Amino acid sequence: MQTSSVFLAAKPFSAPVRVRSLNAPSTAKDPGSMSAAAPKWAQKTITLPPQRRGCHLITPKIMKEIAQDLSEFQCGLAHLFLQHTSASLTINENYDSDVRDDTETFLNRIVPEGRSAPWKHTIEGPDDMPAHIKSSMFGCTLTVPITNGQLNMGTWQGIWLCEHRDNATPRNVVVTLNGI
Amino acid sequence: MQTSSVFLAAKPFSAPVRVRSLNAPSTAKDPGSMSAAAPKWAQKTITLPPQRRGCHLITPKIMKEIAQDLSEFQCGLAHLFLQHTSASLTINENYDSDVRDDTETFLNRIVPEGRSAPWKHTIEGPDDMPAHIKSSMFGCTLTVPITNGQLNMGTWQGIWLCEHRDNATPRNVVVTLNGI
Amino acid sequence: MQTSSVFLAAKPFSAPVRVRSLNAPSTAKDPGSMSAAAPKWAQKTITLPPQRRGCHLITPKIMKEIAQDLSEFQCGLAHLFLQHTSASLTINENYDSDVRDDTETFLNRIVPEGRSAPWKHTIEGPDDMPAHIKSSMFGCTLTVPITNGQLNMGTWQGIWLCEHRDNATPRNVVVTLNGI
Repeated sequence: MQTSSVFLAAKPFSAPVRVRSLNAPSTAKDPGSMSAAAPKWAQKTITLPPQRRGCHLITPKIMKEIAQDLSEFQCGLAHLFLQHTSASLTINENYDSDVRDDTETFLNRIVPEGRSAPWKHTIEGPDDMPAHIKSSMFGCTLTVPITNGQLNMGTWQGIWLCEHRDNATPRNVVVTLNGI
Repeated sequence: MQTSSVFLAAKPFSAPVRVRSLNAPSTAKDPGSMSAAAPKWAQKTITLPPQRRGCHLITPKIMKEIAQDLSEFQCGLAHLFLQHTSASLTINENYDSDVRDDTETFLNRIVPEGRSAPWKHTIEGPDDMPAHIKSSMFGCTLTVPITNGQLNMGTWQGIWLCEHRDNATPRNVVVTLNGI
Repeated sequence: MQTSSVFLAAKPFSAPVRVRSLNAPSTAKDPGSMSAAAPKWAQKTITLPPQRRGCHLITPKIMKEIAQDLSEFQCGLAHLFLQHTSASLTINENYDSDVRDDTETFLNRIVPEGRSAPWKHTIEGPDDMPAHIKSSMFGCTLTVPITNGQLNMGTWQGIWLCEHRDNATPRNVVVTLNGI
C-alpha cells in the first residue's frame, strides 16, 4: 500500500487539561477521568489494491496504517473518506463473510443492471451507473469515535469497502484523526 | 439509562480568540460574532433500552444526556455513533409518527425477509440479514453542527433510532462533542 | 444567497506545532511535512435557492461561499449539514449530468409514489413521504477532509443536493470547518 501522511500536534499546554467526570462509574472504554494532551491532527491517504466486486472487510488494513497514530489519541474522531464515486464505505458485521455476500446480492437486486436497466449513462459500461447509485446508497464517508487510542466500534462492527465495479482500480481512503 | 462520560477542555488561552464576522447580518442561530473558549472534547456512551422493531424518535433521550455538556460549546460538532450492525441512526421528520411508520414499511418492502429472501446468512433468524442491510442503508453514524450550545438542526429534524431486529437488545450510542 | 458566518481561531501558540512525517514520499495532496497554526473553527449557513426535483451539483455554489475560509486550513474537516427532511446531500460524479438524472430515476423507481404507495403520511402531498424516505437513504450530512486549503475530494467527486419535493423551497446548509 502506498501511503503518505502528516501528523500535527499543537505544543502542549503548560498546565494539564481540565478533566470532569460527569457520571461514574467508569468503564474500560469510557474512563471516568483521564489525562490529556493538546489537540492533535493526523492525516494520511491509504491506497487499497484493487478488490473484486463485492463487500470487503478492511478493518485490518486500515488499522495497520493508522494504529500507531491512533494510540496517541485518548479521545477524538477518526474520519475515513473514499475518493471515488463507484465504490462505498460502510460499517457492518465483521465476522461472517456471508453477510458481505448477501449485502452484495441485495445491492445487485435493487439496482437494475444491463438490458433491463433504464440508465442514460452507459458509456463506461453496464456496471458503472449501478455503481454510482450504490455509492450514494452506502456513502463514501465514515466517522468513528476514538477512545483510549482505539476505534470505539461495537464488538461485531467492522469497516467495509464495497467495490461496485467489475474491473476495479486501486482505491484511495483519506484518513483524518482529530482529538486529544 | 447507563451512562459514563468524560469532559475535557484545554486550559483557556490567556488572550481571547480571534473572531471574524464574514457576512453580516447575524441571525439568532448564526451570530455574526461571539466570544469563545479553548477547544473542548466531551465523550459519553448512552445506552438506550430495547425498542420494538421500527423507527423511533430519540432526540429527547439524547438531549437529556448531553444538553448540559452541549451548553458549553458555542461552535462545534456533535457526533453520534451506534455500536451495532442491525440497527441504524438517521435524521428525519420529528413530528408525525406516521412518517416513522411509513419508513419502516418501506424498509420491509425493499429488503426481502423470510422464505422469499435469497440470504445465505440465516443462522441468527430471518430478520437478522435484512437488519444488517438496513443498517448500511441508513448508516450508524451522524454528525450534527453545534451552534450557541444547541444542536443546529432544522425545525422539523429529529434523531431517529431505527431498530431492525424483532427482539431487540439495549443499544449503545457513543456521543462525541468537539468545539469551542 | 443569504449567508452569515463566524470564524474563530485560537490565539497562535508561541512555538510552532510539532510536525511528524510518517511516510515519505510526499505527494501534492499529502505533503510529508507542513507548517501549522492553532486550531480554528468556522461556521456558516448557506441558503440555496429552490431547485427543481432531482439531483444537482452544488460544489461551485458551496465553494464560492467557503473557499476563502477554507484556504486558511492546512489540515482539517469540512462538515455540511442540510437542515431539511425532504432533500439530501451526497457525494457522487461531478461530470456527466446523466448520472444525476439516472440517480433521480432510481430513487423514483425504488420509492413508491401516488396511488400504488402504501403511505399513511399523505397530508403534505404524494411526493412528501417518498421525499422523507429518500432523505434518509442518502442522508443530510457529509464530512470531507481538508488538505492544504482545499476539499480533498477525488477527481470525479462533487457535492450533490438532491431535491425530493416537486415544489421546493430554499434549502439551508450549515457548513462547519475545523482544523489547523
